[in-house]
Parts: sequence; structure tokens; C-alpha cells
Amino acid sequence: MYGVERSFIREILRVASSPEVLSLAGGLPLADLFPVDEIRAAADRVLMQDGASVLQYGASSGDAGLRSWIADRLCSHHGIPTTPDEVMITSGSQQGLDLCAKLFSDRPIAFEDPGYLGARLAFQASRVPLIPVPLNDAGPDLETLEQAFDTGAAVYYGMSRFQNPTGRSYTTATADTMAELLNRSDRWMIEDDPYGEISFGKTDSPLLARRVPERVVYLGSFSKSVAPSLRLGFIRAHCSLLEHLEPIKQATDLHTSTLIQSILRELLTGGEFNLDAHLSRICHTYQAQRDALVQAIETLVPGSRIPWVAGGGMFLWASLPVPTDELFGHAIKRGVAFVPGQHFYLQEPDRSTIRLNFTNVSERLIPDAVERIAAAVQDM
Amino acid sequence: MYGVERSFIREILRVASSPEVLSLAGGLPLADLFPVDEIRAAADRVLMQDGASVLQYGASSGDAGLRSWIADRLCSHHGIPTTPDEVMITSGSQQGLDLCAKLFSDRPIAFEDPGYLGARLAFQASRVPLIPVPLNDAGPDLETLEQAFDTGAAVYYGMSRFQNPTGRSYTTATADTMAELLNRSDRWMIEDDPYGEISFGKTDSPLLARRVPERVVYLGSFSKSVAPSLRLGFIRAHCSLLEHLEPIKQATDLHTSTLIQSILRELLTGGEFNLDAHLSRICHTYQAQRDALVQAIETLVPGSRIPWVAGGGMFLWASLPVPTDELFGHAIKRGVAFVPGQHFYLQEPDRSTIRLNFTNVSERLIPDAVERIAAAVQDM
Repeated sequence: MYGVERSFIREILRVASSPEVLSLAGGLPLADLFPVDEIRAAADRVLMQDGASVLQYGASSGDAGLRSWIADRLCSHHGIPTTPDEVMITSGSQQGLDLCAKLFSDRPIAFEDPGYLGARLAFQASRVPLIPVPLNDAGPDLETLEQAFDTGAAVYYGMSRFQNPTGRSYTTATADTMAELLNRSDRWMIEDDPYGEISFGKTDSPLLARRVPERVVYLGSFSKSVAPSLRLGFIRAHCSLLEHLEPIKQATDLHTSTLIQSILRELLTGGEFNLDAHLSRICHTYQAQRDALVQAIETLVPGSRIPWVAGGGMFLWASLPVPTDELFGHAIKRGVAFVPGQHFYLQEPDRSTIRLNFTNVSERLIPDAVERIAAAVQDM
Repeated sequence: MYGVERSFIREILRVASSPEVLSLAGGLPLADLFPVDEIRAAADRVLMQDGASVLQYGASSGDAGLRSWIADRLCSHHGIPTTPDEVMITSGSQQGLDLCAKLFSDRPIAFEDPGYLGARLAFQASRVPLIPVPLNDAGPDLETLEQAFDTGAAVYYGMSRFQNPTGRSYTTATADTMAELLNRSDRWMIEDDPYGEISFGKTDSPLLARRVPERVVYLGSFSKSVAPSLRLGFIRAHCSLLEHLEPIKQATDLHTSTLIQSILRELLTGGEFNLDAHLSRICHTYQAQRDALVQAIETLVPGSRIPWVAGGGMFLWASLPVPTDELFGHAIKRGVAFVPGQHFYLQEPDRSTIRLNFTNVSERLIPDAVERIAAAVQDM
């Protein structure tokens, strides 16, 4: 199953990478927005100033200055009380998932459904059984979640903001109830927040990590806010959990590249780059792309439905009047790619669903991409 | 046990990092030899020329140009027939161990004893049972190895060249017999070769990967030849194995930093850096340090014995006339650190053994470090 499913996703990405195909399939940030010159200047400075030390082996928990910057930002921008010793640097937040899989591998994990495919694969690679918890309009189904905890799950995995694949955020009421549940049942949440910085407006935060920080392993990422190829993310967790995660990190890859960590630290603290101004540019662009996509779907694809409009992140989730797995082949012939929603489900999928990425095709080309989808629907 | 042992090793490294202690304990390459300016120039060039593309998500198997360079080098310098599609880039060779742990986790691994502690921790983090195979003067004990294969081990883990901790290389006769055994029993070897490029003289190669490449998962590293903080290594394996390893890599951290891979590729192929000339400098320096260490042990520590002199790598293995775990506290008081040999054993350890790193203390200070060991032996 693992192999089969994987080959289908790879097949999607393979055909999607063909130059004549407009791809709404992957999850790539817009490369035009990468701060290339600022990263180049930061790399030059750290190698000039601290060459030998940034090239030597480093601590498994990561660069002290970067951990400290992250702790400050979690406090000031996300309302998560954090000290530097509660932060560990990871090789992207995907690695955070791998380390959590090893930490929690002796018991099943309750898993948001539909949910992030990469998390599912990370847990499955460590042979951790998953218990599906349906994602409703307000967030995870709390009754199912409580049952999962009662029947042995030690931890729940989910994204409370701008979820992949649905773009959904939990309501604050659901987050409040979940916080109580975690406390009452003495369980944890792995709160995966790769899109948390990509927010198109001020909204009340559903973050569990700000409600019950001691019950949450929070995973953050610089892939969307700075650049994916740095492969830099972090875990924020209570020291009693980090104490177990650190030797697992050491056994996994010793530590994340000190050179890359130093470059990012220098970028963030060196003075010539302002992350908030940079995020404004990203969000401004992505919001326009999202708006173009929503409008095109609503006007060009009869019978389509957008159950909620993502308030941030990179994905729009929609329903089409045909099974999207069957639509896929027709769409490729028409020159457009997407991911059929069924690939994100653990349980019986809703085959009408579709995940559309809005950050990789320019605002100008989005209507064209959606016209091709509409034509493929017609072809069926 | 995992926790206890780990805290002792951490304690060793903690006290060893005190400024008044001469440390023969860790495994750090000499930072003075890092090609800082060349790496800085390479970083500048890749970001200038290909900024946006080297910052985007990349392929799980790694940068095509770097894989191709590695394949060429394995052929030309190590006699291992290799095509680029048999190479996958990893985040250091430690990650190669983690990926192998996941690949082979359904059956026990036969494990060189004494052996590399980091490999043991990587396999244990994925809960893979280990079967000890004693390392003799000529290499692993082949009778025990065959028994391990007969009783369920699918794969043997070991270092055929300049082993950590013993500095030992397998004899070519043992390697030949092992190659036959792997073929006959339809089993694999994980051949970990982080020190393969740090060789002090021309010797016949014991590499299994050149004898039976289709039976070997070969792990290489740039940590000792270029710089550890790049966290760049690679797996060389038959395509039928890489096909399974690649989705595991993807689930683990998506891919290794494209920026770092591009910097290394540019360093190796850009023209201004010559790896072989660089390795000559490293080997010249390390050989002098090793010679100083051997001479100091033999002349200053009565009752010591050096069972073999490492022909490369970073470690010397010796026997002292006292239990080295008891010696450790006395040694720290005298201002010198090492790792007691017992920490590298899976089975009943030889408590007289000691692992001495010779690359991190300068040639000039090595006699002083050994005098302190001799004084600590006297103190007992």
C-alpha cells in the first residue's frame, strides 16, 4: 500500500513537472520571492567571520543564537511562552515528524483525517499505527479523538492553522475544548504549523501550543517563510520531552548543518533583512493568487463547491461534480495537474475532493489553469 | 541502558570540553585544515548564478551533479563500479545509518564488536535488535557472522577501513571470504567508510563494496575530507535497494539541503579546490599526530600495548595496565580525556582498552597529553 500510494503521488508530480502542464499539484513556494541576495550576503559574512567554527561539528540541539531568536519570536508573534532551552533545531519540520515518530513509536498516534501525507509517511516509516480522527468544519471530531485517547493513543497529530490539504483552521472553541481534553486525559498533541507565518489577516489563534504548551510538541519551519532548501525547522516542546528528543536527533543525523543554521541566524539578526516585511510581500502575493483561484473555480467550474476559503497557507480544498481521481487523466491531457483529495484520507475518502496549490502558478495564469480543469470536467 | 550509557558519554564530552583538559576523547577533525575560503567562494558563486533554484525544494535522491561526481570518484579512487543512479545524498553518513535502520528494521543486524557507538544508537533508535560479531585481528569473526546470518540477521554492519574505535582494517583475505559468504548466504553488508579518504599509505583495499557491490550498502561522508558541518554524506547501493531507501529518505526529511549540496558540488567541480591535494595535507598532518601519539604511548606509559597501528582515520586503540573506566576520573584531574574502550562493546568488554583520537590535539601537545595519562596511571 505504502509503495503503491507513493508511486501514484510520484506519478502525479512527474507528469506535473512537464513544461506544458500548469501544476496546482505540488506544494512549492514561489521561488521569485526567495531572499537570494540577502542569503548570499549572510553566507559570506558568517564564513568570513567564523569560518572554522561554523564548519565544525555542533550541538545536536542546534545553534544557541538561532534557538534564542526562535524562542523570542514564538513569544512575541505566536503567544507561545518559550525559552531557548525549549527549542531544538531540525532539518526541516519533516524531520520533526520523524523524531516524533521515534519518540512515540510504542503507541498508536491519533491522526487528523484528511491530513498531511508526509506526516503519514513519516509515522509509517517508523511503523507507528495511526487512528483516524475526522476533520470537521470546526476542527477534529472531539468525540473520536477522546475515544482514540481512551483506546491507547498517546498523542494526536494535526495542523490547527491553514491545514494541508484542506486550508482549514480549527475554531478557537474547538481549540479550547481540545486543550481541556489534553489536560484531562494526560495526552499530547504534535502541532504541525509549517504555514503559521503565511496568514492573510489577523484572526484569533487556534494554536494549542499557546493554550497548553506543556502538552504540545510544536513543529515550526522556515521552508515557507524563508526558503525550503535550507531544510531548517524546529521543535518547541517542554524540556522533559526535549530531553528524550535530543538523543534521538543525535542518533538520526548528529545535528543539522551548522553552516546553514549560522547563515539563517545571520540573515534573521544581521540587520539587512526584515522577516516581517518579507512575510508581508509573500502574503500579499499568495492572497492575490488564492483570490484568483477561488474566483476562477466559482465562475468557471459549474457544480463545484469550496467548503471554506483558506485564510493562509498554500492550499485550497474544493469539491467537484466528478470523482477527481478519474478526472486526473483528463486534466493532464488538458495541461493541468492537481492532487485528487482521496490521497489525503486514511479512511473512506470523499472522491469529489481536490487539493489545489495556489502559490506555484502565477496569478495571471491561474484562470487558464482552472479553465483547463473545467474543460476536463466537460470531457468526462 | 540507552539513557544511562548516553549520559556517561555526554559526561565524558562535557568534562573533555573544559579548556584546561587536553581531549583525546571526541572525534573532531582539525578545524585549521577546513577549506574556509574555498567554501565561501563556492557559496557565493552558486547563490549568484542559481539563487532561486538552489533555494527551492529538490529531489529526495539529491543533486544530480554531486551524485555524478561521487559515482566517478567511487570508480576512480575506490574501485567501486558506480553509476550516478546508484548514489543517494544523505545528511551526513549518520543519516545513512538511520535510513538503513528503517530499511532493515524487521530483522536483527549483525554488528561489529567493538563498533561505532553512533551506529549502535541509530539502530537502537529504530528498535533493531543487534547480534554482536567479535572483531578479531583480521576482521570480523567469520564463524560468528555466518551463525548470525543463519539465525536471522539479514545484514552485517561494519567498517572495513580504519575502524572506529579500533583503527583496524580488515585483511584482504578476510574481505575475500566475507564476499563469498555474502553471496552464498544471500545477505547484505552496511559498509560504513567515513575514514576511507583519510589513508596514510597505499594498501590493498579490503572494501567489500568493490568485491560484491550488489551485496553492499556503502556509506560515504564528506565530514572528514571537507567539513563536518556540511552534514553531507551518501549511500551507494544497487538500484533495487535505493528504490526502497529513497521513499524512506523522503519520509525522513524530504531531502538534504539543496543549497549545501550545491555549495559542495561547486567546491568539488569549480576548479579552484583540489580534493586530492587537500587530502594530502590532511593525511600528512594526521599521520604526524598519530606517530607522535604512538611514540608517546610506547615510551611514556609502562605496561601499555598497541595491538595495531591505524593506517588511517582518526583513532588509536590501546591497552593500558589498569581498567580505563576507573582511570578516567584520575585522568580528568590530570587534565586529559579519552573514551574508555568498554563503551564500544556490545558484549563483555575488555576493560583495559582505550580509544584515543589523534586529530584534535596538535602534534606538539600530544606528548604532554600522554604524560598526563601516565601520571593518572601512576595515581592508581
